[in-house]
Amino acid sequence: VGFEARLSQLVHQVDGAVACAVLGVDGIPVAQHVAGSPEGLDLESSAVEWGAVLGQAQAAAARLGGGPLEELSLQVGGLWVLLRPVGGGHHLLLVGRMPGNPGKGRFLLRLHAGEVAAGLALLS
Amino acid sequence: VGFEARLSQLVHQVDGAVACAVLGVDGIPVAQHVAGSPEGLDLESSAVEWGAVLGQAQAAAARLGGGPLEELSLQVGGLWVLLRPVGGGHHLLLVGRMPGNPGKGRFLLRLHAGEVAAGLALLS
Repeated sequence: VGFEARLSQLVHQVDGAVACAVLGVDGIPVAQHVAGSPEGLDLESSAVEWGAVLGQAQAAAARLGGGPLEELSLQVGGLWVLLRPVGGGHHLLLVGRMPGNPGKGRFLLRLHAGEVAAGLALLS
Repeated sequence: VGFEARLSQLVHQVDGAVACAVLGVDGIPVAQHVAGSPEGLDLESSAVEWGAVLGQAQAAAARLGGGPLEELSLQVGGLWVLLRPVGGGHHLLLVGRMPGNPGKGRFLLRLHAGEVAAGLALLS
């Protein structure tokens, strides 16, 4: 299954989900799927902002020395935002509307992180 | 119920929880409860680091203009970390060990945020 198809599956498997993306180091999506009409969601701007917050959280984790950051989630403006590093500076991003099912989103991102990392390694 | 007693209740009501605190603007705990023997957790350093990440996420939310940040959660080094702004630059922090029940932690922080905010307003 290619990246876009996998991201589309993730969006459709999680209640409330509106967008899923693989972000590069700078928070720019390298692959994405956005559901029908995600009013009020500017995925490009959001991905850069939340990718930067994830980078700051990873730096904080490195300073604390207790282990790497595995996941970051936010609730903001009626949306939930999930980010999971997949290695090589890439992250999986899943965004949805409240309430939806961010718990299932967390589970599926964890489940598919390895596959995404393997796919990215093949591309590079 | 005073702050420390409420924070202690929160720690004891959530599986895996080891520490709960009210953080000031700079991430310094203004009230806290730490369970018995939280090995490997330096609450003071962690609170400053995670409080700073929350501040960065709030700034990102402000730039995006979709609404304020309501909650931030992290998984890092076998711990889950929950942060919820309660107004006036103060935040509730709940830290626990994986797997535990961070979902219940999120629920209880949301439930008690108003009460904590009211208590802080009385103090100031």
